Amino acid sequence: MKSAFFCCFLLFTFPSFLHAQESVAVEKRYTDEIKSLANRSVVKAVFQHFADWEPQTKQDLIALTETPAPPFKETAKAKKYAAMLKEAGADSVWIDEIGNVIAKRKGRSSRKTVVVEAHLDTVFPEGTDVKVRQKGDTLYAPGVGDDTRGLVAILTVLKGLEKAKIETDADVWFVGAVGEEGLGDLRGVKHLFKTHGSKINSYIAVDGDGISEIVHRGLGSYRYRITFKGSGGHSYGAFGIVNPHSALGKAIYYFTGEADKFTRQGVKTTYSVSVIGGGTSVNAIPYESWMEIDMRSESPERLKGIDQLLQTAVQRALKEENSLKRSGPDLTVDVKKIGDRPSGKTEPTVPLVQRAMAVSTFLGAVPKLDVSSTNANTPISLGVPAITIGSGGVGGNVHALNEWWLNDKGVLGLQNALLVLLAEAGIAK
Amino acid sequence: MKSAFFCCFLLFTFPSFLHAQESVAVEKRYTDEIKSLANRSVVKAVFQHFADWEPQTKQDLIALTETPAPPFKETAKAKKYAAMLKEAGADSVWIDEIGNVIAKRKGRSSRKTVVVEAHLDTVFPEGTDVKVRQKGDTLYAPGVGDDTRGLVAILTVLKGLEKAKIETDADVWFVGAVGEEGLGDLRGVKHLFKTHGSKINSYIAVDGDGISEIVHRGLGSYRYRITFKGSGGHSYGAFGIVNPHSALGKAIYYFTGEADKFTRQGVKTTYSVSVIGGGTSVNAIPYESWMEIDMRSESPERLKGIDQLLQTAVQRALKEENSLKRSGPDLTVDVKKIGDRPSGKTEPTVPLVQRAMAVSTFLGAVPKLDVSSTNANTPISLGVPAITIGSGGVGGNVHALNEWWLNDKGVLGLQNALLVLLAEAGIAK
Repeated sequence: MKSAFFCCFLLFTFPSFLHAQESVAVEKRYTDEIKSLANRSVVKAVFQHFADWEPQTKQDLIALTETPAPPFKETAKAKKYAAMLKEAGADSVWIDEIGNVIAKRKGRSSRKTVVVEAHLDTVFPEGTDVKVRQKGDTLYAPGVGDDTRGLVAILTVLKGLEKAKIETDADVWFVGAVGEEGLGDLRGVKHLFKTHGSKINSYIAVDGDGISEIVHRGLGSYRYRITFKGSGGHSYGAFGIVNPHSALGKAIYYFTGEADKFTRQGVKTTYSVSVIGGGTSVNAIPYESWMEIDMRSESPERLKGIDQLLQTAVQRALKEENSLKRSGPDLTVDVKKIGDRPSGKTEPTVPLVQRAMAVSTFLGAVPKLDVSSTNANTPISLGVPAITIGSGGVGGNVHALNEWWLNDKGVLGLQNALLVLLAEAGIAK
Repeated sequence: MKSAFFCCFLLFTFPSFLHAQESVAVEKRYTDEIKSLANRSVVKAVFQHFADWEPQTKQDLIALTETPAPPFKETAKAKKYAAMLKEAGADSVWIDEIGNVIAKRKGRSSRKTVVVEAHLDTVFPEGTDVKVRQKGDTLYAPGVGDDTRGLVAILTVLKGLEKAKIETDADVWFVGAVGEEGLGDLRGVKHLFKTHGSKINSYIAVDGDGISEIVHRGLGSYRYRITFKGSGGHSYGAFGIVNPHSALGKAIYYFTGEADKFTRQGVKTTYSVSVIGGGTSVNAIPYESWMEIDMRSESPERLKGIDQLLQTAVQRALKEENSLKRSGPDLTVDVKKIGDRPSGKTEPTVPLVQRAMAVSTFLGAVPKLDVSSTNANTPISLGVPAITIGSGGVGGNVHALNEWWLNDKGVLGLQNALLVLLAEAGIAK
């Protein structure tokens, strides 16, 4: 999920957190480049196709949305999407080991590779009704905006390139990625960079609505499930053995005390003890106590720093609780990392960001540089120029059953993706 | 559940906690009194009836066990038991406002009232299969021992008194009480003393197997469910609002730190943070965080003392967490007492305890004075002489689906209850 959608969700309560916008100027050369690009007759021809294809684009969106893609179960949608990309004219289309759909369109020189990507997975579990309902012009369905609209946008860009016979200089990969959401933990894009990272020069994720937002900073996160384990026993009869909840309380106390100080200055870094559990009955010392923790920062160093506070707190709590025991075995602790999203920043002066800003401006929007947790996090963390841009239109209620997307000037999203891509990949001379 | 059963369950791991036995001598006058009582021809006649009635006693046990009595749903068993007590010859039988069955048998002088009681409720939820299965001589069924055997024991004592036409000096009430177990929180016996406490002079609970154990100390307990509440929000977007889990962690830290010191000396007092919960997703600050806590002591003062530590810790945690908030509303806390079992002691020199010890010895057992949490807690805390004695036989797996009771010299349990009752109530001259 990209934060443009996310904003719609939380905008009224916490706008300041989400639009930590940087004030950056676009260099004239990029403004000129985009104007010149958009004025080329082949590009104008593609814009016209986009307009002509609106009914088909809507049909594609409905068909893809109604193909479920629950977390870790994206296969059906991947197969359908692969067929659509093949039909659109890609040179080769395959599904990789982890389930990503990759459609390759060769460029003339092939010296560079540009990836445009949207994600296949939704947050909705198996069995969720994904039938699209239309009220007025608005389409309602789980996943319709996040990120099926993104998939359709880049598919339509591919169709446009084919129809207008535009040859790019760089190779372009159109990717439908698995595992962007939640516990998917960016596994699709992580795999893509593990297997093909060395040849990818530029990465454009399409996720979220509108054409204003340009995510150039990856909000990194670590997530843990920490479980203290003891023998358990009767609250009176076994009194004196270690109590996992006491250790958990100590760990929370030590961690949140240090983390509060740590987060009061420097790059915004957050922490949350989010879910806790354990215990069977009010008259029993529990055999386990667990918590799930989320920590986020734009800064990899700060993320590592707060993580260190957590690890120290957990070990201190373990040691102290064990030192208080009067009988029985020691407590143990299991620290399991359940999420690891890298953070980082594509500098606003990098051509990709400059171009995206120039395109957004050219199309009549006000570009906003933003931070979010998207598939772009991975290339950003690896130093590969990467951004996440919107797919046009307006959407809301993301991650809720009544998610919606409205084609309000949605064609601008297609133009946006096309121009940014062409600027990066170059049109062959 | 009385601790004789309880011992069978935990004996191998923590015998020292459970048999905190006092070394107390029985005065000769009580030994003589019991010998004399047991030698009376009417008493011998009742003993013979007990032996003759063994098949019927077994049938009664099966019939009552197979009438479910889940927590807070004892009505069916109460009605059945009331009918049995009426049939046995009680002067009047009624079910009181809270669901206790009370069968009154008038004594000659009626200057005193002695209560013999067993509890109706089991720990097993509605729908549990309570069919009695017999393997060899052992009966298996949820609740067969705890405390259906107790109900049958006092019913059979009533039958014996009737058959032998023994008139007591004091009035005797045979009571089937509701709500002894768990969250029942002794509500049956509490109600009995609220409505009739002023006329009860002596209280004999029958709960648990064997005839050795005499519970004369009530293990008191307080139980709480403590819930911290906030607004909740996104772990990154809403960062800076109060986090209920952080407050809970602090409360646990402060409470267990102080409680550890408090419980290292003085009358044994225990505490357990037993069950915790709250939170919806790893990327959300929770809107609530809760814990269930159990605290126990034989000493009312010590119980109040540790309770105070908890209350102080909770308020301190609330205040500190609120002082750290950066935005949004304050945390609140809800402190709900979900259990309150009074503690106290019937002195071993009190005639009731002396008589119970003399009877146990007379019947060939070694009496053990013990502490437990039973219906006797309530009268003990009110200064009314009260004990809990066993119903004979051998039992095990109490509170488990494979609970069992074996009629190994079970008739001694009936003799035990009869002699203690007659010693307390007196045989009319």
